[in-house]
Amino acid sequence: MTKLPETPLLNQVDLPVDLRKLDDRDLPQLARELRDEMIDAVSSTGGHLGAGLGVVELTIAIHKVFNTPDDRLIFDVGHQCYPHKILTGRRDRIRTLRQEGGLSGFTRRAESEYDPFGAAHSSTSISAGLGMAVAAELSQTDRRVIAVIGDGAMSAGMAYEALNNAGALDARLIVILNDNDMSIAPPTGAMSAYLARLASGRTYMGFRELGKKLTAYLGKNIDRAITRAVEHARGYVTGGTMFEEMGFYHIGPIDGHSFDHLLPVLRNVRDHQQGPVLIHVVTQKGKGYAPAEAAADKYHGVNKFDVITGAQAKAKPNAPAYTSVFAEALVEEARHDEKIIGVTAAMPSGTGLDKLAELFPARCFDVGIAEQHAVTFAAGLAAEGYKPFAALYSTFLQRAYDQVVHDVAIQGLPVRFPIDRAGFVGADGPTHAGSFDTTFLASLPGFVVMAAADEAELKHMVRTAAAYDEGPISFRYPRGEGVGVEMPVRGEILEIGKGRVMKQGTTVALLSFGTRLAECLLAAEDLDAAGLSTTVADARFAKPLDADLIRQLARHHQVLVTVEEGSIGGFGAQVMQLLATEGLLDNGLKIRPLVLPDNWMEQAKPEAMYAKAGLDRAGIVSTVFRALGQKQIEVGAAG
Amino acid sequence: MTKLPETPLLNQVDLPVDLRKLDDRDLPQLARELRDEMIDAVSSTGGHLGAGLGVVELTIAIHKVFNTPDDRLIFDVGHQCYPHKILTGRRDRIRTLRQEGGLSGFTRRAESEYDPFGAAHSSTSISAGLGMAVAAELSQTDRRVIAVIGDGAMSAGMAYEALNNAGALDARLIVILNDNDMSIAPPTGAMSAYLARLASGRTYMGFRELGKKLTAYLGKNIDRAITRAVEHARGYVTGGTMFEEMGFYHIGPIDGHSFDHLLPVLRNVRDHQQGPVLIHVVTQKGKGYAPAEAAADKYHGVNKFDVITGAQAKAKPNAPAYTSVFAEALVEEARHDEKIIGVTAAMPSGTGLDKLAELFPARCFDVGIAEQHAVTFAAGLAAEGYKPFAALYSTFLQRAYDQVVHDVAIQGLPVRFPIDRAGFVGADGPTHAGSFDTTFLASLPGFVVMAAADEAELKHMVRTAAAYDEGPISFRYPRGEGVGVEMPVRGEILEIGKGRVMKQGTTVALLSFGTRLAECLLAAEDLDAAGLSTTVADARFAKPLDADLIRQLARHHQVLVTVEEGSIGGFGAQVMQLLATEGLLDNGLKIRPLVLPDNWMEQAKPEAMYAKAGLDRAGIVSTVFRALGQKQIEVGAAG
Repeated sequence: MTKLPETPLLNQVDLPVDLRKLDDRDLPQLARELRDEMIDAVSSTGGHLGAGLGVVELTIAIHKVFNTPDDRLIFDVGHQCYPHKILTGRRDRIRTLRQEGGLSGFTRRAESEYDPFGAAHSSTSISAGLGMAVAAELSQTDRRVIAVIGDGAMSAGMAYEALNNAGALDARLIVILNDNDMSIAPPTGAMSAYLARLASGRTYMGFRELGKKLTAYLGKNIDRAITRAVEHARGYVTGGTMFEEMGFYHIGPIDGHSFDHLLPVLRNVRDHQQGPVLIHVVTQKGKGYAPAEAAADKYHGVNKFDVITGAQAKAKPNAPAYTSVFAEALVEEARHDEKIIGVTAAMPSGTGLDKLAELFPARCFDVGIAEQHAVTFAAGLAAEGYKPFAALYSTFLQRAYDQVVHDVAIQGLPVRFPIDRAGFVGADGPTHAGSFDTTFLASLPGFVVMAAADEAELKHMVRTAAAYDEGPISFRYPRGEGVGVEMPVRGEILEIGKGRVMKQGTTVALLSFGTRLAECLLAAEDLDAAGLSTTVADARFAKPLDADLIRQLARHHQVLVTVEEGSIGGFGAQVMQLLATEGLLDNGLKIRPLVLPDNWMEQAKPEAMYAKAGLDRAGIVSTVFRALGQKQIEVGAAG
Repeated sequence: MTKLPETPLLNQVDLPVDLRKLDDRDLPQLARELRDEMIDAVSSTGGHLGAGLGVVELTIAIHKVFNTPDDRLIFDVGHQCYPHKILTGRRDRIRTLRQEGGLSGFTRRAESEYDPFGAAHSSTSISAGLGMAVAAELSQTDRRVIAVIGDGAMSAGMAYEALNNAGALDARLIVILNDNDMSIAPPTGAMSAYLARLASGRTYMGFRELGKKLTAYLGKNIDRAITRAVEHARGYVTGGTMFEEMGFYHIGPIDGHSFDHLLPVLRNVRDHQQGPVLIHVVTQKGKGYAPAEAAADKYHGVNKFDVITGAQAKAKPNAPAYTSVFAEALVEEARHDEKIIGVTAAMPSGTGLDKLAELFPARCFDVGIAEQHAVTFAAGLAAEGYKPFAALYSTFLQRAYDQVVHDVAIQGLPVRFPIDRAGFVGADGPTHAGSFDTTFLASLPGFVVMAAADEAELKHMVRTAAAYDEGPISFRYPRGEGVGVEMPVRGEILEIGKGRVMKQGTTVALLSFGTRLAECLLAAEDLDAAGLSTTVADARFAKPLDADLIRQLARHHQVLVTVEEGSIGGFGAQVMQLLATEGLLDNGLKIRPLVLPDNWMEQAKPEAMYAKAGLDRAGIVSTVFRALGQKQIEVGAAG
């Protein structure tokens, strides 16, 4: 490791109160040191870099001008909060970011009073901030509430819902639109085009000189009356902005890397705000670190890297990542069937749909951070005979639950749902875990709900989903690499509602749904070795269940353990409902449903999380022993 | 019943193709007849009246100009689709609206090829329409897609997400904004204020004369180049509209009751459309029926009524409706605790929050059709120590699922969720049924999930929720009237995670979650009479479970039946998970979880639906008999 950066000014700043003692002229130097510190820290931990680099000046300026934590500062998503963490008493732990027991990669209420509202999913900050602004008003507290939200996050409907409500309530909320013309991928949508026009198009450029003068005005201590007059003059000339139409007082665009722009504007708003204010700040993602500035993704999320060269460490994978397998399988099916369409909500590379977009650009749609729309848009395509794959992460599919129920499932439309990041996600922690999808999908009449046990199975399920036209169908797969099984050239079409027996035994049955199958097979080795002849089956389907298989397992074994990387109410509940209804639990079968534990599991290495959850080899074995009333014996190979 | 209205012209119109044969000059007469027919039909069935009356001319004009069903016409929500149903081959069944086996009160794909996309929940039409427009483009079909959406529905985020995407895709989609300045309640939000300004404020009125001339221009067959020029001129003068900024070509406002306005504009768009077009049409909800026009809610939803007087039939209730009980209990608690806040998403009267708003207007927030924002806004209030009650229907809470998970549950914020319309809803059918809430909430760590067994219990639960500050808490209750139990003056604070035994027996245990308790008690009478001594318990909590109670029931009875008006994966799954994990299913207990059937149950009287679902007295009794291997004996009182 290289030596730590020199940070004489930053060393004086433990909390924002220290920062407020600095002279304005010192802030550019503080910004340089903060940038160096963050780059150094993330180079050793990995994490989100580009977003934080873009808001170094903005973060400093906000803490300088506003009285945090009493004034509430909410970062949308939280990708960009590392500088904020360093400035708010967490510098000593900044090199534990995203590690077990360390700082979260996002803002968290439990972590600091400077994080008044946690985040990780996008576009929540205006709603939360509005709640806080209303609370301040109700309690007659003279408190400012500032929500910092990126332009990408503005494509989500809930941001619009919140703006719409804030404008009507005339609440004292400050929204800082951090416009870096990037969310994770380059942005899509009319709103982003509009913001670009505001920042550089005729609306803005034509009046740029005037704008400069106005910004200068706004930087002075002018009273509300003058501000209003300026606003009107501005609206008259430019026609007003969407934000003004929504009831916001709109300032900007201003340069988000210039303290000369930021400080006077923020001070003016602090001292003269009445209703809701939107400050449009233009920043550069990755600012101040050449390798990040040069990269296409601006170092949005990085592995550990070399600070000098920017070269990122890459662990050599043992097997292809599930996302890649999905992407390749989908491309393969798309070659065979021109009705196949990809839909992603601002995650073309995260979901692998970028590969489809490369080959078939007209058949792949990135609709922006807009999961609700993504699903109903897909439903519209399906209604016309197309075969949309709405590829979402499990946790983001929650955003579109009503659309899944109301627009897809009730109408029985054959939308395909590839569900990535199902189960534990490691460093991203509980906000990104994919825990609930099986529960909330398998409860819907007519849904087909699959989980891939390995990367070859995933390939089969892509093909199966492509071929299945009777109604909605989903298949879940986890983050990370596959297990290294042999891969078919093309997937096979699986029979709907049929599982498979991997290994036949007589005493214990392990019935897996998803990638815990490998652990079940290992557990079976231990159980066999202990004299408990063990059957292992891969359910493949949580819905429709393979009722014949499950009846067989129930009738011919003493113990039946269901294993899934999902919450209560999902696969295990489906199995128990079947068996209970048919009376197959009446005769002494010991059924043990293993599910995710009933708590929010914190970030850690997935293997540690599986062990804690009892979903690994040792956990499965000990469940069986406890069921049989046997003391857990030493399991030789369980490590 | 009065005699049917005379409808000589309408009698010639079975399908839109017949309508297209009529002369433009005949359409006002057709509109009058269609209105009369609809008023007469709804007077005998009840249903949604005001919305349909407002779009009679618009519906006729669309079918006259466009080639439905090949051109796709999507009505948002579907409240307003009765005239459309009459004109599209369903007139002969229009008096079966919302009845068992009859026409749906909404659009439905299964019902007619003229309903290309079903609806009932708001704000889905632009997304679905965009999917269809893209499909038309991909298949190189010269097809128009028209989405008709109300101004109220424009407050929902998904409408914005769809506009944003449509503008960017430059898709050939026609959005008709039906602006009647009403959704169900008078509208809220900055967008509605904006639309009002567009229609009547300085933006529009100041240029009204110009606007008229432009509308006249647009009515002519002008080519795209001229249109563009006009658009630019218009944008230059008025500053452009939000819809134009979103990439839509924006026409209007025009008079939605004037065929002279509607027909030329629609024809021009049909013949010259290139990218997305938004036509802003101003209509009057309840138009043409004096009692509706005079009513505050414009006869949004009505019972059967007298056509001459407009007087609605009102069944005399036997007991107060759950919604009223909730509303009164909340007001009572709000008197005692000034931290209590009400939040509704455009349903002040539907949820009963209007009563809170009357007494404490500053403490009740109608955020518009914006469930996502409603929940996170409430989370912001909770983070500041307030006690928000986010009152939503079960089915609409689905819209905010991610916000419930990510903003409320993971942060452990004490947002209260009163869940109205839990379970069957009768005439509104499957899109409005509240089936999944227990499943998708009880799977969340840290949530408290309650269900009221009767109206007194509901009162207790309101008080309990008000008093509970440890984290999120929900309580569900059904549509309709209570059972007539004695009501306490004020609710009591229930112990969290404690159920109650209603009746102690020795052989059979019925464990109810929610209002099926009354049926359980009736079933117990039959079972006792048959010699099967029956315990009945009210679980009150699906989470945390009353584990002691459930263990007792499991240990000391031969049969344990769980009963809930909810989907698989909910209360019964929680009970089975507990018992299975603890080995209490190993010893011959016959457990039978009764849940909603695994299909989308169509509209009917709730009692008929309970019988079909096996969730009534007879169904519970027969479940017990089957479990015990006894032939169902005649159950005297089971009717």
